[in-house]
Amino acid sequence: MVSLADNNTIFIGKKPTENYVFSTIMLFTNGAPEVSIKARGMAIKRAVDVAEIVKNRMESMMKTQVSYKEIKIATEKVQREDGESNVSSIDIVLKK
Amino acid sequence: MVSLADNNTIFIGKKPTENYVFSTIMLFTNGAPEVSIKARGMAIKRAVDVAEIVKNRMESMMKTQVSYKEIKIATEKVQREDGESNVSSIDIVLKK
Repeated sequence: MVSLADNNTIFIGKKPTENYVFSTIMLFTNGAPEVSIKARGMAIKRAVDVAEIVKNRMESMMKTQVSYKEIKIATEKVQREDGESNVSSIDIVLKK
Repeated sequence: MVSLADNNTIFIGKKPTENYVFSTIMLFTNGAPEVSIKARGMAIKRAVDVAEIVKNRMESMMKTQVSYKEIKIATEKVQREDGESNVSSIDIVLKK
């Protein structure tokens, strides 16, 4: 399964895009009013893909309208062996 | 130089991130009230990096506050040799 916090958040990692799409739709199906999709660095593109696929699929197959409540981008500090470095992050909040 | 439309838009491609950072800051320096940073597919991460670097650099070095007026994501159809496929896109509007 996909990494999942208590508060209806999906953290995007290196698994196939479909895994995260499935988990996000499951959260909505189980009653979540909104789902936050979070990613850093190279996973940012996948987060955008997941959000768009979920939105389009829920509209076309489940006749359920979802919209973007908020899309935030930020910079986070990450500890590496050779010191601290910056990494961009995204947080996409989908709302049913 | 970087691909640039009339209306203060930066299209993110495969050049180094710094090229797009420079071009975006130049647009603001030349009087643009806002700049739109657009990307598709693999360039989405770079667009987020460019926006965050521009925002942080203008605040720290130029003491100029910039904020996100709007962040939009969407799906675009692209023609390939083997037919049509979907690609995610992002449009980040920075406002001085």
